[in-house]
Amino acid sequence: MLDVTPLRPPVRTSPVPSSAQPTRSPSPRYGARPTMKDVAARAGVGLKTVSRVVNGEPGVTPDTERRVQDAITALGFRRNDSARILRKGRTASIGLVLEDLADPFYAPLNRAVEEVARAHGALLINGSSAEDPERERELALAFCARRVDGLIVIPAGDDHRYLEPEIAAGIATVFVDRPAGRMDADAVLSDSFGGAREGVAHLAAHGHRRIGFIGDRPRIHTAAERLRGYRAAMADAGLPVDESWVSLGPTTPERVRAETERMLAGPEPVTALFTGNNRVTATTVRVLARVPRRVALVGFDDLELADLLSPAVTVVAQDAARLGRTAAEQLFRRLDGATEPPRRVVLPTRLITRGSGELRPEA
Amino acid sequence: MLDVTPLRPPVRTSPVPSSAQPTRSPSPRYGARPTMKDVAARAGVGLKTVSRVVNGEPGVTPDTERRVQDAITALGFRRNDSARILRKGRTASIGLVLEDLADPFYAPLNRAVEEVARAHGALLINGSSAEDPERERELALAFCARRVDGLIVIPAGDDHRYLEPEIAAGIATVFVDRPAGRMDADAVLSDSFGGAREGVAHLAAHGHRRIGFIGDRPRIHTAAERLRGYRAAMADAGLPVDESWVSLGPTTPERVRAETERMLAGPEPVTALFTGNNRVTATTVRVLARVPRRVALVGFDDLELADLLSPAVTVVAQDAARLGRTAAEQLFRRLDGATEPPRRVVLPTRLITRGSGELRPEA
Repeated sequence: MLDVTPLRPPVRTSPVPSSAQPTRSPSPRYGARPTMKDVAARAGVGLKTVSRVVNGEPGVTPDTERRVQDAITALGFRRNDSARILRKGRTASIGLVLEDLADPFYAPLNRAVEEVARAHGALLINGSSAEDPERERELALAFCARRVDGLIVIPAGDDHRYLEPEIAAGIATVFVDRPAGRMDADAVLSDSFGGAREGVAHLAAHGHRRIGFIGDRPRIHTAAERLRGYRAAMADAGLPVDESWVSLGPTTPERVRAETERMLAGPEPVTALFTGNNRVTATTVRVLARVPRRVALVGFDDLELADLLSPAVTVVAQDAARLGRTAAEQLFRRLDGATEPPRRVVLPTRLITRGSGELRPEA
Repeated sequence: MLDVTPLRPPVRTSPVPSSAQPTRSPSPRYGARPTMKDVAARAGVGLKTVSRVVNGEPGVTPDTERRVQDAITALGFRRNDSARILRKGRTASIGLVLEDLADPFYAPLNRAVEEVARAHGALLINGSSAEDPERERELALAFCARRVDGLIVIPAGDDHRYLEPEIAAGIATVFVDRPAGRMDADAVLSDSFGGAREGVAHLAAHGHRRIGFIGDRPRIHTAAERLRGYRAAMADAGLPVDESWVSLGPTTPERVRAETERMLAGPEPVTALFTGNNRVTATTVRVLARVPRRVALVGFDDLELADLLSPAVTVVAQDAARLGRTAAEQLFRRLDGATEPPRRVVLPTRLITRGSGELRPEA
């Protein structure tokens, strides 16, 4: 069972001392904090009694508890969980390494992980790898050095054996959005291959033969899987793929704009585009808005307001919140002792037709 | 000076043991971790020598360092920062309490805080208050119980005196987006009053006399400030305000949709709307898309793709990343010893005209 640090007790023990100090001078004065000894002395009780009250243990008379609470109030005492952490081995905190805290796609995933952690009384430490494998490793190991109970990682790198000693030492680890590299571990993914295949098949079904694919860097698992889905759908439809229709790389607006314009130029331009994630779609939609020609578009990931554009944008949506929730629930199952072999959960995507993906090629 | 826990050392000391254990059985086995004693024993050196190597201190011969590193590698030893935290008083971590990790508006703020923390070698613990003052208090105090060095709080509540003992004990605290309640503390805000006043004046300047305001709950500082800006602009323009044109409350799509439809109904409907934040705007834009009549709109906060709607949405944009960066930099100035009185920084907003705010009332 997870040793939960209850979030309530600190609240119970934190009324506002009438002798509250002014908020000036936030310059740290460590050691200024009152200790349990101070509380015990002021309340005229033993240290163990104070500890019982602070940790909500039984065996204290109401009168004594009141005296201790008064002393806690007067001194502004707060329990220091760091000490408990060393004593009990659990920190009631989990670490989340994601790609970019600023990316709206990861925001609901982040919140979903937080909600599950909160339900287990655990706090969330998180950070962005910025697609840098070294930074992912630094973050994950820094979290481990703080002795998080568990890790949820959206991998930037493709070799996670550096985490094996941590996992062996008891830090439960679940990978989400992308699987672990060169290591067997729990993973919760969206069906990137199936989703892309469905989206591209949808374009082919509307009469398109020259379909472009613009995606993220090929070393990113989801980008590679979505490209695989594109190729499978083209093959299913008996359509040849001209490699000039395929472009993987950074999702910067500059590159995506240039690649979109390139695919729309020339004697035999693409008549439809499949964009590999929310950032690519946002840029491509901007380019298409300035193109007189009618070009069909299906994007992977939904976008806010996508339903209000004209044409509204057809997307292959994944459920980011469900990804986070499922990964976090698996993490706490491990922390609660689940020992079955690592498992991979693949969540379905959903094709949402709104107009841009149903445009037929111009005659 | 902030005692920085360098992120690199753990990386330096974590090559993959050839005897790497399998990733099965993530069930925690605390105590299984090798200690410095184990490393010292295996390397045949003293404990102090291991400590010097682990903490990158001088006074160890290259040969000895290699022997210690080999032992660290073979045993998969990792430094435990929890112990250092208790010894040194600083945790090189900061806590961020925001309203909703899933809200795209806060995502760039979150990332900006992380980047500043990272530059100072500190990790980020964060969580969502969900606009619940009690949950904000639980989170902030739980972060304090973990001995974060500093706190950045987007307030949900309006009384923060519960933090006074923490601040007095040395936990630097900066409020962002909204000021502290009933307490004098550092705060970094956007100019909600000035921004709303400018946006509403913009609508009045385009001939609107009946302008509606739909905002968040009145107890939220930014919502109250934006309403104040609306009233000021109406007064400046010599326009009376019919209270049926003003609606503050939860930003749920249901409520916002109903209020928008109500203001557009009746014999004297509003001809323009000012929406108080990104969530209100997203819903109002959807309602207006289905209304045959031409209604002008200016929204507070920018939205992705807002420039691609027809008409494109005119907004009063605030710089969420700059809010976070400024707040985090002020926090670390405090941690570095800055002792001047609490100060309030107000960042300017920017009116971005795109079309919806320039529509004139129908004759």
